[in-house]
Amino acid sequence: MDRPVYGDTDPVAAFATPLGISALAVIRTSGGESVALLSRVFSRPEKLLAARGNTVVHGWITACSGGGGSPAEKIDEVLVSVYRGPASYTGEDGADISCHGGIAAAKGVMAALKAAGFREALPGEFSFRAFMNGKIDLTRCESVMEIVSAKTSLGREHAARRLSGSLEREIRRINALLVETLAAAELCLDYSEDEAGAARADGGAAADGAEGALPGRRFAEDALERLRGLAASYRRERLYAEGALVVIAGRPNAGKSSVFNLLLREDRSIVTDVPGTTRDWIEDWVSLEGIPVRLADTAGLRDSEDPVEKLGISRSRELLGEADLVLYLVDGSAGITGEDRDFLGSAQKPLIPLWNKADIALPPPGSRLLAVSAKTGEGFGKLAEAAAAALEKAAGETAPEAGRLSAGIGTARQKELVDAALASLEEALALADRGEPLDLAAPALREAVNALGEITGEVATADILEVMFSRFCVGK
Amino acid sequence: MDRPVYGDTDPVAAFATPLGISALAVIRTSGGESVALLSRVFSRPEKLLAARGNTVVHGWITACSGGGGSPAEKIDEVLVSVYRGPASYTGEDGADISCHGGIAAAKGVMAALKAAGFREALPGEFSFRAFMNGKIDLTRCESVMEIVSAKTSLGREHAARRLSGSLEREIRRINALLVETLAAAELCLDYSEDEAGAARADGGAAADGAEGALPGRRFAEDALERLRGLAASYRRERLYAEGALVVIAGRPNAGKSSVFNLLLREDRSIVTDVPGTTRDWIEDWVSLEGIPVRLADTAGLRDSEDPVEKLGISRSRELLGEADLVLYLVDGSAGITGEDRDFLGSAQKPLIPLWNKADIALPPPGSRLLAVSAKTGEGFGKLAEAAAAALEKAAGETAPEAGRLSAGIGTARQKELVDAALASLEEALALADRGEPLDLAAPALREAVNALGEITGEVATADILEVMFSRFCVGK
Repeated sequence: MDRPVYGDTDPVAAFATPLGISALAVIRTSGGESVALLSRVFSRPEKLLAARGNTVVHGWITACSGGGGSPAEKIDEVLVSVYRGPASYTGEDGADISCHGGIAAAKGVMAALKAAGFREALPGEFSFRAFMNGKIDLTRCESVMEIVSAKTSLGREHAARRLSGSLEREIRRINALLVETLAAAELCLDYSEDEAGAARADGGAAADGAEGALPGRRFAEDALERLRGLAASYRRERLYAEGALVVIAGRPNAGKSSVFNLLLREDRSIVTDVPGTTRDWIEDWVSLEGIPVRLADTAGLRDSEDPVEKLGISRSRELLGEADLVLYLVDGSAGITGEDRDFLGSAQKPLIPLWNKADIALPPPGSRLLAVSAKTGEGFGKLAEAAAAALEKAAGETAPEAGRLSAGIGTARQKELVDAALASLEEALALADRGEPLDLAAPALREAVNALGEITGEVATADILEVMFSRFCVGK
Repeated sequence: MDRPVYGDTDPVAAFATPLGISALAVIRTSGGESVALLSRVFSRPEKLLAARGNTVVHGWITACSGGGGSPAEKIDEVLVSVYRGPASYTGEDGADISCHGGIAAAKGVMAALKAAGFREALPGEFSFRAFMNGKIDLTRCESVMEIVSAKTSLGREHAARRLSGSLEREIRRINALLVETLAAAELCLDYSEDEAGAARADGGAAADGAEGALPGRRFAEDALERLRGLAASYRRERLYAEGALVVIAGRPNAGKSSVFNLLLREDRSIVTDVPGTTRDWIEDWVSLEGIPVRLADTAGLRDSEDPVEKLGISRSRELLGEADLVLYLVDGSAGITGEDRDFLGSAQKPLIPLWNKADIALPPPGSRLLAVSAKTGEGFGKLAEAAAAALEKAAGETAPEAGRLSAGIGTARQKELVDAALASLEEALALADRGEPLDLAAPALREAVNALGEITGEVATADILEVMFSRFCVGK
């Protein structure tokens, strides 16, 4: 049997919801003749065949009958939502089958579908078809998977903005600017040698910052600024999508566990369910002002001869090495020790120093330590704000402009292509600045346009698409 | 705030699919004004309000806007299947919202729904409403949860038969027979003393087996036979639903692990995903001819002085005590030992003796041991058949009548009520057989009718219903 490939129009089916004890499971189908195939294992075939798009038909999925006289075995009672292309997610005809939850019913329905002639969909194949049929561009395809794996509601919000087309619009806007520049440049290239010579002569003036040798330079400058904004957005978007590692450190008895537990109790709105892995330290996910944070408690840091304790401390130091932010606790009841001073003085990381047990003793006047009390909860609101601000600063986030939500890029693929477009555009501008002939700058501009086209998928090779969609989950 | 109770018509919402990384998640809503409430957090409210039943509307779930001028935040792009009562699962108006999978999107949609005025549904509340609105009887409600937790396709098939009404029809048939009997008896009671006396005199003859003192006795006899069939079906149905424990035992080196692994490899069609618990023995689920089987490998059984080995052997014996079936392996290369003979002679359990390593040495002629070889796979088809037959026999299963799938009961609640009906009917017949007056037998008949009515829900108290539905999963 041939291995199925992206790009055909075979009728495909996939589990679209996780299999487990639940009320419903959904199996999604799409492709040529999928409604006709489905009618072979449906208790009311005529009703299904006659169904218009966006209507729901109630009935039973039955075993694929061999054509014999006995009634086909009933597999499960279902609701079938029928979609008719092109007004469907994939652009093809298809149907979502809502059957009973659990594992046996969904698997029974899938077995009947396969017997009827469906093949199991490849990962991301529904989105692939939607893209190939011009329903959505690649940035929206990718945002779908970003939404699925979002850890906090803010992470989901950022991805949903891309799904609604914010990134696609920004890329098309930049693309239009570059095409304007390129059109102006190519117009010049078509001119006579004399005129081109004049343009080159003009280029000398461009180095002084005026409209330069590159015709349409102001479009290129606008594109440059927007591309730089997108490139800078990546770290912020990854922060909201993937989260950050925040490590609590401090001397023994500084109250690290109490602070850890209070942060956990204060905010349990994190929505990830990453399965726990065995570690030598305690950690859990919390949401700090909408940023998903993997919060880790560490062994107390102090000089020790005990081999077990030494091992714990050495692991704490490794964890501190990976941290995006350190919350360093000073034991307020003991005051700042020499070890505290050493740690705070030598920190290589973004760090927030905390004065714990503020209910017992206040920090010395003028101290830059944030006073908190794990006992009374004092200072924890400020701590969450300070931690979120520090993480955003570390991710290069600037204060958002009032009323304007800037577009951001969400995937490594998008980042690479934005960087490539940026490099090509900078190269084109540098060539123009140096007064090089336009036929040297034009190819660089075209490379930038191509890179942007790859982001939305206007320019894309089959190989690249296959790699990209195969990372999606099945049923998507 | 008052605790929500079963029986109101509040607009309710529930996650209907497990939350996890997947293409889709479904949130189910139902109840008065649910479509109007949903339109408050939907990007195309007019379209939704105008939607007829069983149609699908595409749009975005938005944050519940405070009525201000700025556009509401988009939460997720969704497909909404609109249902209009009474042609819906619950009988009420409602909508299934299909949003993106993952956790953040589904939780974001749920938060918007709650802000719009939905409350989270109680477990089983959708099915409860379906029952209260006369859409399905209690046996079908229960079959829905049976399907959800089915472990093999045969288990699902048995439950699906109940969902399609096989048990409900059988209960109504038995009920009709009892009502006939009761009607005849009550007609007699309405007669004059003389006629009643004559009926009693006639009752003496009934003891000889003819149509007895109980008018309509032949209806009662038919009902009795059918009730006994239902009562007997319970263990078989539980076997298919819950499965059985099959333990592999034998002396060290008899090849237990090889047999265990081969059975696992031969059939991985089991669909349960019960999380593994830490045990001192190895076990896994397999499907033997459609019966879900928890297959356990044990430590080799032999006399030992080693304390660790003694502990293992003692635990093996405990496991053997719980087993529904034992597969006892004799090492064919060593022949039957005294220990083998002792075990086989003293077995208290259904047991299949196996002669392993049949590729090396054949069992002695006339032996009742089933020859298998974990090396070549020889005999494993027969082993699965023999094990399934032994489990069915232990569950009181008789050979199914050709072409007739008998109705079966699937839950402990149903079994208790069938037993109660059976006891009452037997009592009524015994009273009649002893020539007791009809006004003694009639109340017992009425109790039987009541018990049957409770199975389908025609007779049911609020307390009983609440206990029953609260065991369902949320969203069902």
